[in-house]
Amino acid sequence: MRRIRLTVEYDGTNYSGWQRQENAMSVQQRLEEALGRLLKTETRVTGASRTDAGVHALGQTAHFDTESAIPPEKYAFALNTMLPDDIRIRASTAAPDGFHARFDARGKIYRYLIYQSPHASALLRNTHAHVMYPLDAGRMDAEARSIIGTHDFRAFAASGSVAKDTVRTIRDCRVVRAGDEFMLLVYGSGFLYNMVRILAGTVIQVGSGKLEEGAIARALDGRSRLSLGVTAPAHGLTLMRVFYPDDEAQARPCFDGWLSRFRG
Amino acid sequence: MRRIRLTVEYDGTNYSGWQRQENAMSVQQRLEEALGRLLKTETRVTGASRTDAGVHALGQTAHFDTESAIPPEKYAFALNTMLPDDIRIRASTAAPDGFHARFDARGKIYRYLIYQSPHASALLRNTHAHVMYPLDAGRMDAEARSIIGTHDFRAFAASGSVAKDTVRTIRDCRVVRAGDEFMLLVYGSGFLYNMVRILAGTVIQVGSGKLEEGAIARALDGRSRLSLGVTAPAHGLTLMRVFYPDDEAQARPCFDGWLSRFRG
Repeated sequence: MRRIRLTVEYDGTNYSGWQRQENAMSVQQRLEEALGRLLKTETRVTGASRTDAGVHALGQTAHFDTESAIPPEKYAFALNTMLPDDIRIRASTAAPDGFHARFDARGKIYRYLIYQSPHASALLRNTHAHVMYPLDAGRMDAEARSIIGTHDFRAFAASGSVAKDTVRTIRDCRVVRAGDEFMLLVYGSGFLYNMVRILAGTVIQVGSGKLEEGAIARALDGRSRLSLGVTAPAHGLTLMRVFYPDDEAQARPCFDGWLSRFRG
Repeated sequence: MRRIRLTVEYDGTNYSGWQRQENAMSVQQRLEEALGRLLKTETRVTGASRTDAGVHALGQTAHFDTESAIPPEKYAFALNTMLPDDIRIRASTAAPDGFHARFDARGKIYRYLIYQSPHASALLRNTHAHVMYPLDAGRMDAEARSIIGTHDFRAFAASGSVAKDTVRTIRDCRVVRAGDEFMLLVYGSGFLYNMVRILAGTVIQVGSGKLEEGAIARALDGRSRLSLGVTAPAHGLTLMRVFYPDDEAQARPCFDGWLSRFRG
């Protein structure tokens, strides 16, 4: 038995999210169907992150077990011939002994994209949240940075969340602007359900003046959802990459690279 | 009677192109349907450029005539409530006297986007041509620049093209790279049918070593299509903007801005 690690990119527009569910098509199901056809046996895939409907991924990580002798790096090519073109395997490798895509994750980077203009964009409609009113990138960046550190993020947990341990560490969080596009980039040890979308919604509302600066600090202080902004729409969010003990050192250069690339 | 000028953005993925045709949905038809509903009378729209199926636009320009007293700048907001979300009006203004979107165009900027990687991209699949083999950005840029100037572009005319006057002026043409993405940006007085896609295909093949450098110069010399590359796929192409006598001076800063923004 071999464990294979996959790096998965997807456009989440047409999916109910990563996780398999009844009566709706998920990325996990499409991937398991493709693996079933390739390996001629039912194969379960475990993903690092249960991304919501409409959320995208450039670097979701997943693993599966197989008895097949197919060389690990060939899975990417073989699966890509069987998957719809809105799901692509970017890499497949032999997983280290005992590797688990979810439990071994040491950190994740998410980005949230915003398009600011009186009119929505046709070309960016599935990847950027549209904001009609002007945004102040400096205020947004300052607010975003205020989340950095180890905190009890109970205030950021979606209502109905079942997480018991709500302490997480945010290693970096920044907002940069390029013309009429804004990117929030956040690197953390882990995230509560909806946490990045609540963060993005808060930062957008601070940027437009609808929320006072310091909203995040007040929420962390009082641990109350009430001082935070609305949950930003799913389609602006992309899981950029998941980091493990063997590649955690790449998180910082990745974060900085995406930031400077976007800034133009 | 008033003439209104529209700046139109669209994702060309689900359209048969700009121009209205039987048995297929075009951007022009969608726009005329929305105008018909808004103005309660059949209204024809004239576009600057007849983009092909799959080709996108950030700044197609179009005009229409109306007896309506709706303030010109309101059309953008009104039409956007009636159009599908893959077509957006970015601006609407009163057209100068005698303005014609096609005949008055003094220049156009197109971009062609390429994603270079062993595997295709899910998120870029509708906007970037995928190239599996390595590309040399320096060779591509040198080849792209060789098209600059006033030439008889008969070699670049798609077979079956009916253009009589095949002389055009290319004012600038560059290739820039940012990670695994490449952008060809070209600014010209006008373009023959398929000319930018033949240019992009040639530059890609020079970049991968499948065509020798100087292919464009040889084609212009002999005016033969044979020394050029294949026509690159439509979905990599975007009409960025059309320039008129009143805004032609903005073409150069626009070109330079897109170039430096992409380079990151």
